[in-house]
Amino acid sequence: MFTRDMEQRKSERNFKMGELYRKIKEYVQEDYYPYHMPGHKRNLLGSTALPVAEIDITEIDGFDNLHNATQVLKRLQDKAASVYGAEESFYLVNGSTSGILSAVSAALPAGGKLLMARGCHKSAYHAVYLRDLEVKYLWSGENEDYGCNLAVTPQQVEQALLEDGGIQAVFIVSPTYEGMVADVAAIARVVHKRGIPLIVDEAHGAHFGFHPAWPENSCRLGADLVVHSLHKTLPSMTQTAILHVNGELINRDRLKRFLQIYQSSSPSYVLMASMEDAIEITSLRAEELFDAFLRQWNNMLRKLDGCKWIKILQEESMDIGKLVIRDSSGVFSGQQLYRLLQDRFHLQMEMAAGSYVLAMFTIGDKEEAYERMTKALLEIDRECGKKAEAASFGNKKHKTDAIYRNVRLSTKQRIPLKQAWDCETIEVALEESPQHIAGEFIYLYPPGIPLIVPGEEFTEEISLLIKRDIDMGCNVQGVINHNGRFYVKVVDKRA
Amino acid sequence: MFTRDMEQRKSERNFKMGELYRKIKEYVQEDYYPYHMPGHKRNLLGSTALPVAEIDITEIDGFDNLHNATQVLKRLQDKAASVYGAEESFYLVNGSTSGILSAVSAALPAGGKLLMARGCHKSAYHAVYLRDLEVKYLWSGENEDYGCNLAVTPQQVEQALLEDGGIQAVFIVSPTYEGMVADVAAIARVVHKRGIPLIVDEAHGAHFGFHPAWPENSCRLGADLVVHSLHKTLPSMTQTAILHVNGELINRDRLKRFLQIYQSSSPSYVLMASMEDAIEITSLRAEELFDAFLRQWNNMLRKLDGCKWIKILQEESMDIGKLVIRDSSGVFSGQQLYRLLQDRFHLQMEMAAGSYVLAMFTIGDKEEAYERMTKALLEIDRECGKKAEAASFGNKKHKTDAIYRNVRLSTKQRIPLKQAWDCETIEVALEESPQHIAGEFIYLYPPGIPLIVPGEEFTEEISLLIKRDIDMGCNVQGVINHNGRFYVKVVDKRA
Repeated sequence: MFTRDMEQRKSERNFKMGELYRKIKEYVQEDYYPYHMPGHKRNLLGSTALPVAEIDITEIDGFDNLHNATQVLKRLQDKAASVYGAEESFYLVNGSTSGILSAVSAALPAGGKLLMARGCHKSAYHAVYLRDLEVKYLWSGENEDYGCNLAVTPQQVEQALLEDGGIQAVFIVSPTYEGMVADVAAIARVVHKRGIPLIVDEAHGAHFGFHPAWPENSCRLGADLVVHSLHKTLPSMTQTAILHVNGELINRDRLKRFLQIYQSSSPSYVLMASMEDAIEITSLRAEELFDAFLRQWNNMLRKLDGCKWIKILQEESMDIGKLVIRDSSGVFSGQQLYRLLQDRFHLQMEMAAGSYVLAMFTIGDKEEAYERMTKALLEIDRECGKKAEAASFGNKKHKTDAIYRNVRLSTKQRIPLKQAWDCETIEVALEESPQHIAGEFIYLYPPGIPLIVPGEEFTEEISLLIKRDIDMGCNVQGVINHNGRFYVKVVDKRA
Repeated sequence: MFTRDMEQRKSERNFKMGELYRKIKEYVQEDYYPYHMPGHKRNLLGSTALPVAEIDITEIDGFDNLHNATQVLKRLQDKAASVYGAEESFYLVNGSTSGILSAVSAALPAGGKLLMARGCHKSAYHAVYLRDLEVKYLWSGENEDYGCNLAVTPQQVEQALLEDGGIQAVFIVSPTYEGMVADVAAIARVVHKRGIPLIVDEAHGAHFGFHPAWPENSCRLGADLVVHSLHKTLPSMTQTAILHVNGELINRDRLKRFLQIYQSSSPSYVLMASMEDAIEITSLRAEELFDAFLRQWNNMLRKLDGCKWIKILQEESMDIGKLVIRDSSGVFSGQQLYRLLQDRFHLQMEMAAGSYVLAMFTIGDKEEAYERMTKALLEIDRECGKKAEAASFGNKKHKTDAIYRNVRLSTKQRIPLKQAWDCETIEVALEESPQHIAGEFIYLYPPGIPLIVPGEEFTEEISLLIKRDIDMGCNVQGVINHNGRFYVKVVDKRA
């Protein structure tokens, strides 16, 4: 026995660490700072003292069954519900994706009619596809300097409901990827006047409602279904999220059915234990953690106020933690800022858009996060000044607002999403796409919000916008590159 | 700074470990041995040296995107494909559930006709629901002594395909939960003669093909789509699985679409790193690990051969590692054996059925697993002998075969699954269910194979079978307990 065990141990040591582990190990040993999800920022705060292999149990006696929780997992979910002020909460081990699919599937019947914010995550579009829904869009306004979407307004929702009496549920996103917060209370009132449910994709707002400086969470503002991505802004592992339900408009049995359909029947206890700790810690230490966060954040903004060219997006109702940065001198595009911050300063951003970059801060961040960001942006600001003067760059602004507005005005739904996505498609060159009907989603990733949806007609404006995003080096998904020429999938009219 | 960090650290220490962590910690400190999934048996074998918080990164530069893999995740998946002999393989972070949903959704159009083994996991039924498929069932035979299903045969598949020319894809399970292995090569030939794809749910066979004593894995036997649950039998974390695709019958773009729909857009790198290591270790150390497994297994079976009453299921084509145990004296039912093994011997089984219990062994098991099981079963065998003589128990066998066969013969599909599951339902007492149409699945969990499916008519036999399973203390899901009286959901005929 002894000999065999010795041999086995030796042989175990001989196994080279897998490539992914090795890459991650190398990466975390460097000095890159993570201004991106997951929100724990490599510091889960709670108990991670147990080896993963020991935490990773399954639904044996005494450990309950997530899909029919009556014991410990029921207690954990009830505790989460009480923290967020929900009637019932459900742990999600397949991310907000599974919460959004379940919420939409449960909120209205297959084939029903959904009013949804156009700036939704792709999973909402996938729910539309799976349930063959008819869909009307809410188009939000834009911040013109940054070219990013605002949150939808109660007036927009009210108008859309007036225009179509057949709508059976409303789906909005708040906060948006860039941190714009909707007036959820007012929207809930408008929606409930019609006796239909409101779903809020609050994936980026799991930290709402813990401190007076942040917005209230949507469970307490009247939403019927709320999705929180725990890993985005709380110290919880990636792929963890939670779905809350309130009120009488949602059939709970149906909701549970879909949660069971869209999630593994072998949910990970490592993920679930991480969810419990994240919610517990955030709730028990809310004052201390968010006070420190706020102080450091305000301190950073004060210092950045001294910048001449580097601007930080500030809207009336905005989340604290999303730093949306642009260079108003026009020297650096969003992509260029992203590369500069990464290559010279070793600061890893969350995403880059046409004119801005986005850095995420959470309660997981230490002083270092604020200091390094401040230092880098002050240095870049000085550089912008010099370069702008030297090259008279000042006029060539990396602005994207006009084109985005054109997309909104020119989008034409021709055939239903499900029908179009199931069609036979052909590839046409991007520049020849106008008048064709899209057979595939095209979106920037992140954040995964579509520029065009299957069933919509390509227009000159949309085609140009996609081309511009590709030229700027954005991560455009859904476009095919054949030897440097770009093609898109369109519905085959002959089929 | 120093003071604040000190305070913060103190406060972190003050946080009580979450309930779930605490429960798990207490549990693993006891001496219960896990004869159940996950297959790593608390020993992941590979590198788990990094703290979870460090491994848990996301799709930043250099770390690829699972849903459009081109870099490291592509290499990992390609490596897995080459280990299993597949053309392409896809990591699944939402378990086999997501692989089965994706495979079925991609293999035939919405509304199409699927031939599937009735002994499928519930996720296959969920795919039928989501895609509104018409479904024909393959009913396998049973082992009469144990009352458990055998694998489906090529003859059964051939016959079913002859009877219905409209079938567009075939879905089978091999090995079954109890370890029955189908003749996949012959079934693939029969299916391919019709030019349609074969999906094999090989969730319980991720360890196949690594050693000559085990069956070949279905990728090498001609299956078009194969799902492997990595956590079930390999040293990989719970909720990890992999989907393989081969040949020309599956549209790869469509398959990738559904993988993206049914899985989180923020996949866990902790899960993915675990998958890589599990496959690498199993493949690099296959001979050593499976040789040891086989030797210990055979050694245990030899000793158990001495039992007079305790019997181990042995079929011609069976997996090695599933120990299906029954008491042929009739003293102990499956549930009673389960409790006895747990309470007296601290051996945690995988599941209990009417007449048997199931213990799972994997390459993760150490000598202790075999020794404790052998000792316990030899002691129970002696006890059976004594009790059987004392009480003349010999006649009252816990046999279930006849009833199961009756279910097969008496099941009547009345309305399509999707239609029935979406209907308004009412509750009727279980004993009054015959002639009503089921509005909900009823199944034992584990393994989650339905006794009745929405749209099927309750018969006297099915109603009795469900009643018997409840009376035996089995975990029956889909039945409602109102003060000790049992109700089922049936389609409301008035609606």
